[in-house]
Amino acid sequence: MNTGRLEAFSDGVIAIIITIMVLELKIPQGASLAGLKPLLPVFAGYALSFIYVGIYWNNHHHMMHAVKSVSGGVLWANLHLLFWLSTVPFVTAWMGEHPLAEAPVALYGVILLMNALAWLLLQTMLIRHEGGESELAKAIKAGLKERISPALYVAGIVAAFVFPPAALLFYVAVAAIWFIPDRRVERQLGMR
Amino acid sequence: MNTGRLEAFSDGVIAIIITIMVLELKIPQGASLAGLKPLLPVFAGYALSFIYVGIYWNNHHHMMHAVKSVSGGVLWANLHLLFWLSTVPFVTAWMGEHPLAEAPVALYGVILLMNALAWLLLQTMLIRHEGGESELAKAIKAGLKERISPALYVAGIVAAFVFPPAALLFYVAVAAIWFIPDRRVERQLGMR
Amino acid sequence: MNTGRLEAFSDGVIAIIITIMVLELKIPQGASLAGLKPLLPVFAGYALSFIYVGIYWNNHHHMMHAVKSVSGGVLWANLHLLFWLSTVPFVTAWMGEHPLAEAPVALYGVILLMNALAWLLLQTMLIRHEGGESELAKAIKAGLKERISPALYVAGIVAAFVFPPAALLFYVAVAAIWFIPDRRVERQLGMR
Amino acid sequence: MNTGRLEAFSDGVIAIIITIMVLELKIPQGASLAGLKPLLPVFAGYALSFIYVGIYWNNHHHMMHAVKSVSGGVLWANLHLLFWLSTVPFVTAWMGEHPLAEAPVALYGVILLMNALAWLLLQTMLIRHEGGESELAKAIKAGLKERISPALYVAGIVAAFVFPPAALLFYVAVAAIWFIPDRRVERQLGMR
Repeated sequence: MNTGRLEAFSDGVIAIIITIMVLELKIPQGASLAGLKPLLPVFAGYALSFIYVGIYWNNHHHMMHAVKSVSGGVLWANLHLLFWLSTVPFVTAWMGEHPLAEAPVALYGVILLMNALAWLLLQTMLIRHEGGESELAKAIKAGLKERISPALYVAGIVAAFVFPPAALLFYVAVAAIWFIPDRRVERQLGMR
Repeated sequence: MNTGRLEAFSDGVIAIIITIMVLELKIPQGASLAGLKPLLPVFAGYALSFIYVGIYWNNHHHMMHAVKSVSGGVLWANLHLLFWLSTVPFVTAWMGEHPLAEAPVALYGVILLMNALAWLLLQTMLIRHEGGESELAKAIKAGLKERISPALYVAGIVAAFVFPPAALLFYVAVAAIWFIPDRRVERQLGMR
Repeated sequence: MNTGRLEAFSDGVIAIIITIMVLELKIPQGASLAGLKPLLPVFAGYALSFIYVGIYWNNHHHMMHAVKSVSGGVLWANLHLLFWLSTVPFVTAWMGEHPLAEAPVALYGVILLMNALAWLLLQTMLIRHEGGESELAKAIKAGLKERISPALYVAGIVAAFVFPPAALLFYVAVAAIWFIPDRRVERQLGMR
Repeated sequence: MNTGRLEAFSDGVIAIIITIMVLELKIPQGASLAGLKPLLPVFAGYALSFIYVGIYWNNHHHMMHAVKSVSGGVLWANLHLLFWLSTVPFVTAWMGEHPLAEAPVALYGVILLMNALAWLLLQTMLIRHEGGESELAKAIKAGLKERISPALYVAGIVAAFVFPPAALLFYVAVAAIWFIPDRRVERQLGMR
């Protein structure tokens, strides 16, 4: 089975996730500029989640580019990742409502962690399917980013119960690390 | 007419169905972790429906892979299946609101049953269109899973009026049976 | 410019329209089967609109199959059709709330009429773009269905202010006429 | 990396944006035609935003047609454009609620301005990626429309605080300028 329909379906789900988040931006009651002020943290949270989902789309794009075919297990590992991505709008909305509250900020980290673990699982299943000598396996052998991210999320979750703004710094840091698409894969495949 | 646009449209509809279900996960009123507790059954119901819709996408993917072309009747049988799939978010939301109540649990089973029958109809029309000697016809000759599932749904619907948790066990059992993509088709086509 | 991306974008918009309509099916307040009763007209309206949008998708599929390339004007005629299709969920929701009230039933007909006119416009621009000797032009020369439908819609709109159920009969009749994909195009192209 | 998946993902996001805007058209409370009156400005705003998003889709289509491959930077410039496009439904809803109020009309202009700047950034990154001698670079050398639009938006934003209807005229004027797909690109590529 080739990767075409898997990519198309993933694109569809990710496109919807990234777009329906904005529906949480409820319009202010009045017509004054001042009414926009309480929306600023919601908007910032939306922007952060947009970047996160964008990173996943970007890296999904890159990883699938190095993949030849998919198995039934890969299809489910991919759906599993999409499931956790689909919970991002929920936790973004909760954090937006209570910007610096402990529980929402911690749960945001938990959801990011679940996404990171689902990504690792998908990657592992793809490498097992493609074989240890495949381009994909060589390209992500090191996998430094994949290993650092969960640790940073856990640190963020713990920090959320002490000083929530610090947790947000952890989450922004992981986003910054991943912002650049995976040069290792690009280099291995000689892509531009 | 080839299957390309039918698959693309089905992917789009299924991607939207699977994603908008999460919009039913309304954020809790306060900012405490305790506020998440009443959401747990809603979340569990969402996860079950996500798996169900995922199974349909997965098997749709497999079945269409064995199909050469589609007729007008197949297009409508496919839209008919998409119609019943589109009612899954509604009944998931109702069951999530009343996790172990008789009527919502029974209706959940009715909707799953309608989906199963719509699937059987689509399969029948595809086999008639492709011909009895086609790869598809040979691959799903036995059709054990397709015949057991409706019976289990009916059992679940009846059970819902006696002891709702038992009904949920039936629904989870059918999901488990279908979880693995259809090996018969894969074997027949020599796909990986 | 080829028709690929136009079809993909139209598929996306139509898939969303057909799916978000179900979001209007608000879950009943209690957990009893009796609570579903007031939803029946909403459900029937949803089913009718689903069939209508399905017909447009189906015929769009067929028409574009006979088209070689598109112009800027065709792109906008297509967006114009998508605009009117996107208003179907709104009017379906209004009619669902007031099933046999004059104004909602009449507006439903007006929206269907606008869609039919947008379809005619798209067809006209495609024929002008493809040329009078094109396969498309020959295939839909007669265009009986396209001419009868607006008349039936107008009859339905007028009927809505006298006896709303009669208007609904007109709308169902047009759906029945269009239910079968356009055999003329299929025959001309020798498609199955 | 080729442009296929970037176009498909952009199509998905734009299709969702253009369609969920209609969800803001809340059905009137009663069943009378008079109840539709307060919806007219909301409907007009929806139509204007539909045209704006349609213009972006149309021009995105044209620009990507002249592009051979994309870089990581282009992927992000594209996501950045999609982010600002995704805020259009929010500001359309706010302006629809307060049709001629200063702040909503001004913010509508600000969002259009951000979209125009995001478009310029994407265009700049594409030309840098494709090279100064590319078809794309030659085609949009002049870029008159791209330079006039931001100035007109700024004029509209200023006007919003003096006389909001004048601001709307500015926004409609820009839409009119862009309504016709970019003939320069079409001419350069010899497309129809």
